[in-house]
Amino acid sequence: MSALNIPMPREQLERIVRQVVRQQFAERLEAGEQQLSAAYTPNLVVNISARHLHISREHLRQLFGPQAELTVYRWLYQPGEFASEQTVTIMGPRRKAIEKVRILGPVRPATQVEVSYTDAVALGIDAPCRPSGDTKGAPGCILIGPEGVVELPECVIRAQRHVHMSPTDAETYGFKDKQSVKLRVSSDCTTTFEDVLCRVAPTFLLEVHLDTDEGNACDLVNATSVELLA
Amino acid sequence: MSALNIPMPREQLERIVRQVVRQQFAERLEAGEQQLSAAYTPNLVVNISARHLHISREHLRQLFGPQAELTVYRWLYQPGEFASEQTVTIMGPRRKAIEKVRILGPVRPATQVEVSYTDAVALGIDAPCRPSGDTKGAPGCILIGPEGVVELPECVIRAQRHVHMSPTDAETYGFKDKQSVKLRVSSDCTTTFEDVLCRVAPTFLLEVHLDTDEGNACDLVNATSVELLA
Repeated sequence: MSALNIPMPREQLERIVRQVVRQQFAERLEAGEQQLSAAYTPNLVVNISARHLHISREHLRQLFGPQAELTVYRWLYQPGEFASEQTVTIMGPRRKAIEKVRILGPVRPATQVEVSYTDAVALGIDAPCRPSGDTKGAPGCILIGPEGVVELPECVIRAQRHVHMSPTDAETYGFKDKQSVKLRVSSDCTTTFEDVLCRVAPTFLLEVHLDTDEGNACDLVNATSVELLA
Repeated sequence: MSALNIPMPREQLERIVRQVVRQQFAERLEAGEQQLSAAYTPNLVVNISARHLHISREHLRQLFGPQAELTVYRWLYQPGEFASEQTVTIMGPRRKAIEKVRILGPVRPATQVEVSYTDAVALGIDAPCRPSGDTKGAPGCILIGPEGVVELPECVIRAQRHVHMSPTDAETYGFKDKQSVKLRVSSDCTTTFEDVLCRVAPTFLLEVHLDTDEGNACDLVNATSVELLA
């Protein structure tokens, strides 16, 4: 994974070590040490993904110059993922724009813009709700960087609400990769989000991603509890 | 009710007539005509309330001049309620503003500003989630009209999601005034909103009000069904 070339802060290293330890618990569980099951309690984290984009190497160079690299602004909860210092302006078909939209690194094979419905209305773009990576038939937009402009087809989506989890987490909950589950957020305006897509991978930490509309709808910031349900 | 002095369009008159007929069904039901119960099917409507304000006579005059009256821009679903042609600018403590916020009529005893959390963030105001009318301890704001400015304490809230209903509707669902119920909106991002406040009155038509964050979170515009649950 190319992200491993980037220096990691202590906090993130600790998280990865914990993840490895959990994974080993899981392997011993599978090997029949049933009494270990009580030792693992999933630590559910729910975060809001503000509008952002992922970018290909080619588009990064077109927007930021031929030598451009993404540099770390802030590490994210998922190992190796980071908010970069680089931002772009996104423009819709009627020249409505949102400035300073942050690129999340590392670079990816394809460029993808993820906005909330509120953002989509502001841009005049009818963004479909899709799992990350599924941009076929989605609307395009114009990206404006300090060194260039790119007009992109099929790139703007509202990311379907989803939960990252390790195989250990999935086993603990009894969930499978790509399964739709529910998230209940308790607050003054308690809300249950259905159609939460499970994304299972060994490198993932247990984390739900909502967008800003969803986070605001349930007042996530002041939530008293969160729970994943089948 | 002062709103009855305002001329009503045919569509709204029809709604009121239907409401009266329903009410008569309810009275006959209570009188023992049980077979009538099958005749009434609630027609659940869910609408998004964009940011707006209600205004007192005094503040209307301060903002729009001593002879000012609210004039009808568009009738709303609830009988007698209307979006007025009059709009104001709302300003937060750090001079962040939202322009063209519509006043809903008729005039009320107290002025109250209702915003989404997205709006509250834009204004730099920490608006609490409250039932309409409960503004005690809520933050204030500055209202700017064409003829004057008013600095108001305790007026900015996020309106708690709620459902207007007639006593007949309440009886059909088995709900009581002020009860908290649930609204399930089915879409690509199905969402169940809890803490939906029942507001029962003879003049109310069956209608849920969500704010823009909530409407966007569940993609209400493209919803395939809506249902109220206990």
